[in-house]
Amino acid sequence: MDALECLRTRRSIRRYADKPIPKEILAEIVDIARLAPTANNRQPWDFVVVTDRQVLKTLGETADWGKHIAEAAACVAIVVQPGTWAREDGANAATYLALAARAHGIGSCWVAGDPSPFAPKVKELLGIPQGQHLTCLMPLGYPAEEPHPDKRPLGSVIHWEKYHG
Amino acid sequence: MDALECLRTRRSIRRYADKPIPKEILAEIVDIARLAPTANNRQPWDFVVVTDRQVLKTLGETADWGKHIAEAAACVAIVVQPGTWAREDGANAATYLALAARAHGIGSCWVAGDPSPFAPKVKELLGIPQGQHLTCLMPLGYPAEEPHPDKRPLGSVIHWEKYHG
Repeated sequence: MDALECLRTRRSIRRYADKPIPKEILAEIVDIARLAPTANNRQPWDFVVVTDRQVLKTLGETADWGKHIAEAAACVAIVVQPGTWAREDGANAATYLALAARAHGIGSCWVAGDPSPFAPKVKELLGIPQGQHLTCLMPLGYPAEEPHPDKRPLGSVIHWEKYHG
Repeated sequence: MDALECLRTRRSIRRYADKPIPKEILAEIVDIARLAPTANNRQPWDFVVVTDRQVLKTLGETADWGKHIAEAAACVAIVVQPGTWAREDGANAATYLALAARAHGIGSCWVAGDPSPFAPKVKELLGIPQGQHLTCLMPLGYPAEEPHPDKRPLGSVIHWEKYHG
């Protein structure tokens, strides 16, 4: 898939086909996520890839905004060591993960990690120390929907040379 | 460019050729950045595109970790409305911006915004209200270097089913 097309056509996908993702594809997606930009090239992250159906269901029940995790083929928890730029580093990895999935024809939809109220329970479930920063849960699955959310037009977000409210 | 190749080969580029980026390419890069994922599809961002050489030089002097901005063809400031997920939303847009640039053969290198000590000065310089969150400055330019930073191997960051330290 063309890179610009991949960027332009990625959407948040919450409905998935009942079809597993091969383990080597999951590994390749994470292999790309680890190349995301990170402050001082620290790469302070870990990726927990969940494929166990019962755990996916429990994650879907635990994460208030992530009921779709229950039906996903897999879910990746992005975990970052604490630090000034932990939130940016983790988000960069998450975006890389979503785009690598998209390039493989796989949908995803970011589910909040810290500071959401359910993050501590998610960490407990996956054996993640509470002191680590949970960026998000990223469910993955072959898409069973084609959403077209509204986006703000370019003219309303771009400013040349100076900010203008 | 292939999407997976784009993701795999983006690097932080701090040295740039003395060659301007056409305004329509800058606009297309921002046009893609605005499609990044964002909490509840709020798209709470603005993009300030700086091409004025004197302002680029001043940004390079102002941002302690961004001296390379002075030599860039352009620099995009990513500004996000305050909110729980402002840091993640802004980072997603920044990663989209860097990848869209890469797909056009353009290099970039994230320079920290908030909470860096120089963020307030950058906002003042670009007319950005202090209450807005500055995600980063993203200098853009055709690459004049090919860095190959070390990356942690997949085996040290991937965990199956459960986190293991």
